[in-house]
Amino acid sequence: MKDFMDKDFLLDTEVAKKLFHDYAENMPVCDYHCHLSPKEIYENKAPESITQLWLSGDHYKWRAMRSCGVEERFCTGDASDKEKFEKFAYTLQYCIGNPLYHWAHLELQRYFGIYTPLNAKTANEIFEKANHTIQTGDFRPRSLITKSNVKVVCTTDDPVDDLKYHKRLKNIEDFDCLVLPSFRPDKALNAHLDGFAEYINELGKAADIKIRSYKDVIAALLKRADYFHAAGCRVSDQAFDYPPYAVAGEDEIEDIFRRAMQGEKISLSQCDKYRTPVLLALGEKYSELGWAMEIHIGAMRNNNTLMFNKIGADTGFDSVGDFEIAQPLSRFLDALNKNNKLPKTILFNLNDKDNTVLGTMLGNFQSADAESKIQFGPAWWFLDTMDGMKNQMKTLGNLGVLGKFIGMETDSRSFTSYARHEYFRRIMCALIGKWVTDGWYAYDEDILKEIVQGICYNNAIEYFNFEATK
Amino acid sequence: MKDFMDKDFLLDTEVAKKLFHDYAENMPVCDYHCHLSPKEIYENKAPESITQLWLSGDHYKWRAMRSCGVEERFCTGDASDKEKFEKFAYTLQYCIGNPLYHWAHLELQRYFGIYTPLNAKTANEIFEKANHTIQTGDFRPRSLITKSNVKVVCTTDDPVDDLKYHKRLKNIEDFDCLVLPSFRPDKALNAHLDGFAEYINELGKAADIKIRSYKDVIAALLKRADYFHAAGCRVSDQAFDYPPYAVAGEDEIEDIFRRAMQGEKISLSQCDKYRTPVLLALGEKYSELGWAMEIHIGAMRNNNTLMFNKIGADTGFDSVGDFEIAQPLSRFLDALNKNNKLPKTILFNLNDKDNTVLGTMLGNFQSADAESKIQFGPAWWFLDTMDGMKNQMKTLGNLGVLGKFIGMETDSRSFTSYARHEYFRRIMCALIGKWVTDGWYAYDEDILKEIVQGICYNNAIEYFNFEATK
Amino acid sequence: MKDFMDKDFLLDTEVAKKLFHDYAENMPVCDYHCHLSPKEIYENKAPESITQLWLSGDHYKWRAMRSCGVEERFCTGDASDKEKFEKFAYTLQYCIGNPLYHWAHLELQRYFGIYTPLNAKTANEIFEKANHTIQTGDFRPRSLITKSNVKVVCTTDDPVDDLKYHKRLKNIEDFDCLVLPSFRPDKALNAHLDGFAEYINELGKAADIKIRSYKDVIAALLKRADYFHAAGCRVSDQAFDYPPYAVAGEDEIEDIFRRAMQGEKISLSQCDKYRTPVLLALGEKYSELGWAMEIHIGAMRNNNTLMFNKIGADTGFDSVGDFEIAQPLSRFLDALNKNNKLPKTILFNLNDKDNTVLGTMLGNFQSADAESKIQFGPAWWFLDTMDGMKNQMKTLGNLGVLGKFIGMETDSRSFTSYARHEYFRRIMCALIGKWVTDGWYAYDEDILKEIVQGICYNNAIEYFNFEATK
Repeated sequence: MKDFMDKDFLLDTEVAKKLFHDYAENMPVCDYHCHLSPKEIYENKAPESITQLWLSGDHYKWRAMRSCGVEERFCTGDASDKEKFEKFAYTLQYCIGNPLYHWAHLELQRYFGIYTPLNAKTANEIFEKANHTIQTGDFRPRSLITKSNVKVVCTTDDPVDDLKYHKRLKNIEDFDCLVLPSFRPDKALNAHLDGFAEYINELGKAADIKIRSYKDVIAALLKRADYFHAAGCRVSDQAFDYPPYAVAGEDEIEDIFRRAMQGEKISLSQCDKYRTPVLLALGEKYSELGWAMEIHIGAMRNNNTLMFNKIGADTGFDSVGDFEIAQPLSRFLDALNKNNKLPKTILFNLNDKDNTVLGTMLGNFQSADAESKIQFGPAWWFLDTMDGMKNQMKTLGNLGVLGKFIGMETDSRSFTSYARHEYFRRIMCALIGKWVTDGWYAYDEDILKEIVQGICYNNAIEYFNFEATK
Repeated sequence: MKDFMDKDFLLDTEVAKKLFHDYAENMPVCDYHCHLSPKEIYENKAPESITQLWLSGDHYKWRAMRSCGVEERFCTGDASDKEKFEKFAYTLQYCIGNPLYHWAHLELQRYFGIYTPLNAKTANEIFEKANHTIQTGDFRPRSLITKSNVKVVCTTDDPVDDLKYHKRLKNIEDFDCLVLPSFRPDKALNAHLDGFAEYINELGKAADIKIRSYKDVIAALLKRADYFHAAGCRVSDQAFDYPPYAVAGEDEIEDIFRRAMQGEKISLSQCDKYRTPVLLALGEKYSELGWAMEIHIGAMRNNNTLMFNKIGADTGFDSVGDFEIAQPLSRFLDALNKNNKLPKTILFNLNDKDNTVLGTMLGNFQSADAESKIQFGPAWWFLDTMDGMKNQMKTLGNLGVLGKFIGMETDSRSFTSYARHEYFRRIMCALIGKWVTDGWYAYDEDILKEIVQGICYNNAIEYFNFEATK
Repeated sequence: MKDFMDKDFLLDTEVAKKLFHDYAENMPVCDYHCHLSPKEIYENKAPESITQLWLSGDHYKWRAMRSCGVEERFCTGDASDKEKFEKFAYTLQYCIGNPLYHWAHLELQRYFGIYTPLNAKTANEIFEKANHTIQTGDFRPRSLITKSNVKVVCTTDDPVDDLKYHKRLKNIEDFDCLVLPSFRPDKALNAHLDGFAEYINELGKAADIKIRSYKDVIAALLKRADYFHAAGCRVSDQAFDYPPYAVAGEDEIEDIFRRAMQGEKISLSQCDKYRTPVLLALGEKYSELGWAMEIHIGAMRNNNTLMFNKIGADTGFDSVGDFEIAQPLSRFLDALNKNNKLPKTILFNLNDKDNTVLGTMLGNFQSADAESKIQFGPAWWFLDTMDGMKNQMKTLGNLGVLGKFIGMETDSRSFTSYARHEYFRRIMCALIGKWVTDGWYAYDEDILKEIVQGICYNNAIEYFNFEATK
């Protein structure tokens, strides 16, 4: 029996150990997609307790607790820090096979020096010890980022954002990490949701454009993209339940847009007709700016109306959809590619039934523009598990070129979640190490080092051209 | 090379062996979903031969035999017991990688004391020996249930059933097993199938309600649910190719219902409009009664018209569908949850492409009503294989809380199929044992014992509140 | 660490080694589906270089190269043989986890005697050595086929083909391999694509039938099927993105057909109404002729319009679709089966999400007509990977009868790709060997030998009745 989560955690061959400890472990981190708050990074306040650090905003943990029958007041409610932590510790002991179990223990080890397994029996002891560490140590955001060896952070930002914290962060001394905005125009695309008209007016103000037509929306977005580019943005992000692609005439699109602006409820299929030209215009712009376009496919959000009305979005009531995605995604990418305007693109799926679809979609549009111009994004959200990561890498290995993979991002709101990069690297080294050990891939240390360090960091830096940004 | 299916079959680590032999092996069985006949349990007749026991009603075996080109008369026809057994033995030797192979040998070992592998060469010897064991031993249903350490059996029953055998079984002495009915209203929901009107009339008679409207159907079903509850029922079951959820006005629903009652063919999408309010009313009732609602999704039945016309339903001509299920399922559960009327729910899928959809659907509706109120049902029917079970548990581990899983049921028509619980427990202990052995989960014997015995039996008893029923 | 791709490559148990080396390795090959050119086999010209052999027509390799940012002139363009080979060698070193990596090295070992791993550093040395081997050895198509121990090759041919090369090949002496045509009527079915009317006229000419109605199309195809049968054809092949099954009246079908013949663009759903009766008539004919009907489901072709316009079809811009297939496929097979006219059928899927659907579809229509009359085809195209093959065999093991599997075909255009049979056999022996080693399947050398050699070769020969053809 191996020791619990020791230094060779997940590394089950000598080659894996060598690859991880010699080449992967100390590589910096390029976090090209996350939900960290630039405001929090700028204000740099330490958390008051491990409960605040872990449980104040983490819907993964709330979901697990609710799955153990824990009452809401211990999740998002007004129970004490200690009570909440105890309920979480109780929950965690049943989370066998869940990434939360590994994430929590990796964070305890790396940021708190705590190696005791967390469960109902040890909750109290660990609560005290962790809080003591927080009070006596340095848990400020920028210190945690620095300690985690993060060189680039791409936050997720709305086109109307003025990016003032990103600007202020540029002038901070003694902080060797690029904090760049990402352009996420989802609100401008969701004409079928409540609040669309209000948002579009806000967008018009931000861009200083009077919006009367969907073409004005496009103009405003493109103007904001330039603004983001000047602030260092090199990545855009859009999320869909399924990739919309519906061609319609200008008059019909204009009519749909006008009705949405008047607060009329439009259907999802009508919305697709509006979204399609807006997305195509954005894609062309990204291509011109040299940005990478991230597409996140397959989330079904806010499924629990009761809880949505009580505590709002992003609280742990989302799940995975099962829409047909292959044909509309192919048509959308082809429409851009036909005009030589397809930007670098990163495809993320939330349903692993789509792994093969995305793994082969890449190959349709690769070109000499970049090494693996079309990327299969790392296992996302519900798939960000040991199995999910392994399957994503095996799929990419089987169907694409794994050696050119840009690797992991955190997609997280927490400053200690950088432990997930270590988790990813261990899994990646284990996978490659096993292949080499079994004689499936030739042992050549130069090549293996290049591949491993490429996936850890170098491929992403080159792909996004972040050295130039710096 | 390990010995063939010995006492450590499937247990590939020392931890797995310990967990299975010390904690899992001797736990009782709570079979919360099966198709055993209460009449057969009551009448308690022994089978005449192993052919009668194994081949008189098992469509798994017939399918395998037909896949080896065996003629129908050796499956469901009039060939002799010996001929049929020989054909099955011939078939079994080619079933490498099939659960049938393991089920058959586990049953030979546990119920017959036969450890010889079954194949064409050994067929004759085993036929003789097994029949001798049947004739000299005790193969009566209640003896097999007792020998298998089964404490609860939930049969599957139509709302019109008078449940007389369940009632009689309550008064049997020396039989320490609760035999409870389950409420399966499928026939009242399938307005698009032949025989609907006749069934509804039968339902009206059983409930003593004159049925003139779909609302009378609801009233009749609710009345029958009360009748079932009084007889100890705590579980309902419904099966769909995809989850129906289609909101319509009362008049339209009434019109669809009337046409169906007049024997008119209605479409599946029309049927969904009728089913939706009936299902919602049923769900509310289950919630009020404290029942668990099982939903089986994805079977495509009776695909072979030629054979259906010859030998009817449930004869081995069903397969797996591939419908989109995420959105309608979410909407249906949300509609109940909005009004605080969502019962405990167990979701089963027949297509493993839906594992991730269901594994994340759970989390949308968990609450303090129960520990893992929404359950991911154990691998069902075609997925009830070593890979299927392992994948279901890994999915639940990754996406939910495996430690609160209510575990296995047999879903079977056979009294020796309780060997499948042993099979499940070996796979579960192997999985958990491997995680602990690899240092992925902390070794804590108290916690591991609680988790393993919970999944074997305790979680189900608590979830369904069967102690109270007793 | 095992040696790189040595004689026990992939064979990780002693049983696997024994099964492979004693029983599988030397079995002949029955390549019942490929895209080899009968003209090339007849003309029997040796390639001029390894670049010509490997890179003149292999879209797998081009895709990988484009994924590494290699410019098109090194793929399909006018770069020199040496430059192209260097770019491919560079690419290959990043293809960790890709079957291309194993295929290339197996071919280097078996056909060139080269055991050095191919990468950017070794490219030059291997280029020289391989070309020397080609120039001094015998790389003519028939020699490669003979060296690969191939006894049957089924090419893929259009119904209008006169099969003259197949006929000429019959008279070649010293060539102990049946080269048979396969009947692939796709062009006659795709009424929604450009060029349909021209093709139908060509078909009419080939069949000497004046085509005025869709019924004439059927008559022409049936006549050509007889022609193919006389030339030794025993297999048909059809490929669809999803299985079409749409019942319509004769007048509507005739109208759709007439419009398509006038060059009008018809929709895919209209095309399905035309395809359905044509396919049913073909299926009946195949049944009467004793042919096997292959159905390839799920490819989405020519996704990149820009490249399609530059270099045409089959150049590496295809990917995997995600259509619903279960219901239409079941209905189509049932429609034939109802009239006792369902031929032997081999189902191939390109999306592994459909594995379970196909694995259970088989069982719906098995009968005493043949052992495993309905076959689950070996992992196809993008799934033709180590994981894909393993999953296909595990699915078939779980859901059907693996011991009656007809095994591998190459589906290739290259004469050295027979190394893929060795790859398949190693994976199959490893899988079975592991099951036996773990005590999951009884060790009985006679039975294991029969199963292994059956899957290698014997099952296919019997299934297609190729001995009789010979």
